[in-house]
Amino acid sequence: MKVLMAVPNVAEGRDASVIERIVQAVRSTVGVKLIDVSSDATHNRTVMTYLGGIEPVLEASRRMSLVALDTIDMRSHTGAHPRVGAVDAVPFVPVRDVGMPEAVDAAHSFGHFLGDHGVPVWYYGAAASNPRRPMGTGKLTQQLLGEYENLPNQVVDEAWPPDEGPRSFDPRHGASTVAARSHLICFNVNLGSGDVSIAKRIAKAVRQSSGGYRDVQAMGVELKDRGLVQVSMMTTRDVDTPLPRLLETVRFEAARHGVPVVGTEFSGPIPLSALEEVVRHYLQLHDFSVNAIIENALI
Amino acid sequence: MKVLMAVPNVAEGRDASVIERIVQAVRSTVGVKLIDVSSDATHNRTVMTYLGGIEPVLEASRRMSLVALDTIDMRSHTGAHPRVGAVDAVPFVPVRDVGMPEAVDAAHSFGHFLGDHGVPVWYYGAAASNPRRPMGTGKLTQQLLGEYENLPNQVVDEAWPPDEGPRSFDPRHGASTVAARSHLICFNVNLGSGDVSIAKRIAKAVRQSSGGYRDVQAMGVELKDRGLVQVSMMTTRDVDTPLPRLLETVRFEAARHGVPVVGTEFSGPIPLSALEEVVRHYLQLHDFSVNAIIENALI
Repeated sequence: MKVLMAVPNVAEGRDASVIERIVQAVRSTVGVKLIDVSSDATHNRTVMTYLGGIEPVLEASRRMSLVALDTIDMRSHTGAHPRVGAVDAVPFVPVRDVGMPEAVDAAHSFGHFLGDHGVPVWYYGAAASNPRRPMGTGKLTQQLLGEYENLPNQVVDEAWPPDEGPRSFDPRHGASTVAARSHLICFNVNLGSGDVSIAKRIAKAVRQSSGGYRDVQAMGVELKDRGLVQVSMMTTRDVDTPLPRLLETVRFEAARHGVPVVGTEFSGPIPLSALEEVVRHYLQLHDFSVNAIIENALI
Repeated sequence: MKVLMAVPNVAEGRDASVIERIVQAVRSTVGVKLIDVSSDATHNRTVMTYLGGIEPVLEASRRMSLVALDTIDMRSHTGAHPRVGAVDAVPFVPVRDVGMPEAVDAAHSFGHFLGDHGVPVWYYGAAASNPRRPMGTGKLTQQLLGEYENLPNQVVDEAWPPDEGPRSFDPRHGASTVAARSHLICFNVNLGSGDVSIAKRIAKAVRQSSGGYRDVQAMGVELKDRGLVQVSMMTTRDVDTPLPRLLETVRFEAARHGVPVVGTEFSGPIPLSALEEVVRHYLQLHDFSVNAIIENALI
């Protein structure tokens, strides 16, 4: 059974009635299952996660984005997160019996649709039109597209024009970034310390940009209300750099400061495959596979 | 979606053509998914695991047992395992959206069917007609029904007659035991030692019968071809006595002998719920639930 997932970010995280209208466009699409909605008032964003067959997921994405373009006015948008538009980022993720090329096709089909509706679109990740472009939406929006206020210049930039849509900028809608990529796992490790510099040092040790594991991003943050600090990690390569290795690396780096791991958490849903290596490693069950799980036969 | 599982044991583990005919009766039933077949020549038994809706699983069980009764002749059966008949033991296990009372109803429906086909049936587990009777098929067949050769006396026993079927004994078919029970997890821990007495001591420490964890059975066995010994454990209470606790108990008991855990294995498929506590414990992800798994939405 082919299953594709979409994890769109839209630029509204405060007005519950607008969020509900956008989410309802997904929820009411036949053949799509909405599994997560996270709204953040500080960043003024909502992230939805839904899955289903390729065509139903595209249909939900089209309907959702038309509602978002209709209800969100970027001229009055404020928020802490870098942003490109009302339908800010729409990554498509292969879940089951779908290869990355099919996810790329889905991303291009959706991007073309947005372009037809007057929105300049840049592709990223595996859908990028140039493989040397950044793979993640963070770097894409921050470092290359620049600030929202720079987008009117970017759409007419000769070096890197939009992949779809008009070479003009509607300040109400902004632009969009559309991707195909592997599932992004957000794994946070909480440390029994109030010293955020320790979390920052450990983040530096595990992330690729400063010498750590390939394609792992990490930062140290303070959880003031809980009196803890956190190493917040993201990776799309949970097969090559499994969760136990990330956790145990954080643990031994923390131990030199006499700081214990007090707990962990996922941010957002995770694929079953990420748990395979957890079982293999900690139960020392070397040849464990998700095929041993009864419920796997029910999918 | 209601999902019931059946894990029947039939008294043929050597003749591939007979086994194939029995398995084919399951495989050809619409709405049933066969997930495991394990044949053992030493014990001369085959264990099938299949699941689906309640009625399809009952239909597969009826068809499978008619083929087994037709093809297996207990008069010529030999094997290491205690046995009661051609259709030896048929436990029904709730998997999803099915309560134990429904599994008991399914067991009684199937037992009644076997009785109508001339097979004396004893119920056990949650389907037992007397709650003081043993819950597991092992104790049931070994300690109470006695040897196969004693069954002709047992079917006319006033104290404990069969729950279904004739009070007479057909030596070709033998009898059957039918149950509703929770999933039985078989978890084996391999130790880096050739001394089976260490595995036996540890088994004694973890199993209920000698003071260990409730409803945990365990034995120490030698894996001669691998130069290892093994603590082989079974439990239906993976919620109360999760796998990490069993593994770590074996590990610290082994450590006093200077013996390491070199690996583990499951025997047979396992429920997703058994992995919940593995993630919670070893990732220190205290509030993890299978609802966080993407594929869980697809079932």
